[in-house]
Amino acid sequence: MTLLETALQGRITDEMEQVALQEGVAPEFVRKGVAEGTIVILGGNRNRNVRPVGVGKGLRTKVSASIGLYGEESSIDLEVAKIRIAEEAGTDTIMDLSVSGDIDQMLQKTLDVASTPVGTLPLYQALAEASRKFGSSVQMDVELLFEVIERHAAAGVGFLALHCGLTMGIVERAKRAGRLDPLVSYGGAHLSGWMVANNRENPLYENFDRVLDIARKYDVVLSLADGMRPGCLADAMDAAQVDEMTIFGELVRKSRNNGVQVMVKGPGHLPLHKVKETVVLEKNLCHGAPYFVFGPLVTDIAVGYDQINAAIGGALSAWARADFLCYVTSAEHVGIPDREQVREGVIAARIAAHAGDVAKGLPGAREWDFQLSMARKDLDWERQMELALDPERARKVKNARRGRGESGCAMCGRYCAMEIVSKYLRTKRHVC
Amino acid sequence: MTLLETALQGRITDEMEQVALQEGVAPEFVRKGVAEGTIVILGGNRNRNVRPVGVGKGLRTKVSASIGLYGEESSIDLEVAKIRIAEEAGTDTIMDLSVSGDIDQMLQKTLDVASTPVGTLPLYQALAEASRKFGSSVQMDVELLFEVIERHAAAGVGFLALHCGLTMGIVERAKRAGRLDPLVSYGGAHLSGWMVANNRENPLYENFDRVLDIARKYDVVLSLADGMRPGCLADAMDAAQVDEMTIFGELVRKSRNNGVQVMVKGPGHLPLHKVKETVVLEKNLCHGAPYFVFGPLVTDIAVGYDQINAAIGGALSAWARADFLCYVTSAEHVGIPDREQVREGVIAARIAAHAGDVAKGLPGAREWDFQLSMARKDLDWERQMELALDPERARKVKNARRGRGESGCAMCGRYCAMEIVSKYLRTKRHVC
Repeated sequence: MTLLETALQGRITDEMEQVALQEGVAPEFVRKGVAEGTIVILGGNRNRNVRPVGVGKGLRTKVSASIGLYGEESSIDLEVAKIRIAEEAGTDTIMDLSVSGDIDQMLQKTLDVASTPVGTLPLYQALAEASRKFGSSVQMDVELLFEVIERHAAAGVGFLALHCGLTMGIVERAKRAGRLDPLVSYGGAHLSGWMVANNRENPLYENFDRVLDIARKYDVVLSLADGMRPGCLADAMDAAQVDEMTIFGELVRKSRNNGVQVMVKGPGHLPLHKVKETVVLEKNLCHGAPYFVFGPLVTDIAVGYDQINAAIGGALSAWARADFLCYVTSAEHVGIPDREQVREGVIAARIAAHAGDVAKGLPGAREWDFQLSMARKDLDWERQMELALDPERARKVKNARRGRGESGCAMCGRYCAMEIVSKYLRTKRHVC
Repeated sequence: MTLLETALQGRITDEMEQVALQEGVAPEFVRKGVAEGTIVILGGNRNRNVRPVGVGKGLRTKVSASIGLYGEESSIDLEVAKIRIAEEAGTDTIMDLSVSGDIDQMLQKTLDVASTPVGTLPLYQALAEASRKFGSSVQMDVELLFEVIERHAAAGVGFLALHCGLTMGIVERAKRAGRLDPLVSYGGAHLSGWMVANNRENPLYENFDRVLDIARKYDVVLSLADGMRPGCLADAMDAAQVDEMTIFGELVRKSRNNGVQVMVKGPGHLPLHKVKETVVLEKNLCHGAPYFVFGPLVTDIAVGYDQINAAIGGALSAWARADFLCYVTSAEHVGIPDREQVREGVIAARIAAHAGDVAKGLPGAREWDFQLSMARKDLDWERQMELALDPERARKVKNARRGRGESGCAMCGRYCAMEIVSKYLRTKRHVC
């Protein structure tokens, strides 16, 4: 029996207990969420021995960091180093999105090294293998695709990202619809190319039952990847995006009916005033399935600073009850992130997630801010550093400037405001 | 006659023409905004020969960078370097917030070097001079304070930040109200200390007519600084903050009646769900006066990453029609920013401002995103770099990874998605 089926039978598993403990909620709350499909548990049943992570309604907003082999310059060692730094920075999951090189070895290494649930996008490997074997990814064999999907599931991934909603009808419509940037999803673009070249329906849609069989067999969570992810503000919330979301809604129902946990992936590029609206739409069309957003980026112009851009959209999304933020690094649109960019990407996403959790009133979320602000008031620098989202960076920034010792922050020079206030208003507090 | 009085008489000045030209609006639109008080023009009449900057309703959201001497480690040369880097990064104004050292010389240098309007907070200098002269800032003489204010106005600053709304009643109430962090504003804390120690009303409130006389004489814009700025989420939107805002409302009326342009300064720390509400409150209580916000920070825990934190709050503020964002750097709460932190602080604020402008539908704002996305689709890398918010950084990030030459972005390795799509969907576009 899968985790979802167990939950539907009213039983609480170890994974649900562990998630409940981490989140500070009742195990029954988690069970109910899993049964309803508003919560998925990544890294649960029959997977590797990792701490399961709950994603969904009423839980802390989670973040994911992507690594993987891309092109000649990549190396497994560097990607492993990125996994380590992403986990140090507090990512909740790792996605190995390798598109080239020794993808099997990279995935094995990822699963060995990562202490968090791992997600993959098996289509990338199937495309790469077809390309190697036949010289072009459009010659990818459907059997090969399903073989790779099962290979990843069997290896122990926690969630499989698959572009199951990209139908021929949607591709044709997108061609007519005059999108500025028709396809920016790597998988979506390749899959569309395959579909058009072979004049065949998307095998992940057409054979969704096979997808479900594998997901069910290994009890792995499905992440319905959006091939029609808008790649610029101009295309946000257009018919292609929404069409695919309606298909996702059907697939969510089918997945649940087959005992398979499922979440939905989302944009991408969205102006601020469409973020909440998009999340609400997903929750409606996809029957409350957890929403896993990529950014979203709220402007197209922040090249080199897309981690900041994504933090803005991510915070709004989390507030609007998106459940899971895929990080965007400052290398987005122009290259592959280095280690420091991975670290900053994770932290930026965590700031967004936490700000959203505070705003949506997640029980306990504000307590962290409260404790840090108490430490600020009490001029307890060590405690401030401990409570900072990234204590190492906080200490580094603080120590970069010679301070006046532990009692002050070096902000005010000789005429420290906090001394004035504590002297005259008779309360000890931090001022800067 | 002041700029405001001229506008009220229906006349359009050179400054209004220049602002209209920069903003792509009609000069009459600017005149009307100035007359109504919903727009202020910084760096206008009788000031230095700088390009005037319009701040307010219907105009592009502006950003300001703060520099200044703080403590022994500061140097005028370093602060001058920061002015240059802030202006290169595209700040609209500079605030010189020196609290120690040779403040006169620093200000003169700032006015010499900056090509944008300059704001100051004269209270800081008055406190420092009192401290030097009498050994304590609480012995600051009221005459000295007004002398410094006039000194700054005469030197040619474009806007004067003054804590005119911090009354004894508000200080007393804040003492009783149980704020977690009663006073985090440097000026507010010192001024409260002075008021309590001397048992006297705030001289900037009590003698607001004298403030207006100076502002009128030099036609300088007033920025009503919030001494009760909340310093943590727990204190956001509390009675102390709102009390002071109601006083600002009275002072806005008085200023306008005296021909003085005025804007209002705001928080600080605010959770996401209080950002729009705070902006709406200010627009109501302060009769549509331009709102100049500091961040706001949407969580207390992002030590070392507060530029990202502030970008989230700034974007929401700009969308909610705040008019002017004071940058926050990644050194906030722990030290003084270095040059790179200044640069990132400005860029983060500009991302926020632009995202807000797009969302609020500012005419023309989305055009920039559209143009950059067109360049992306067309794989025109040089144009993408030119259109990036920070072309230098964009190029640096792009060049950090050896690419596949100008036609590609090095993202996809050998199996480039854009080639598949352009081959099979017969449209040239960028995919990564």
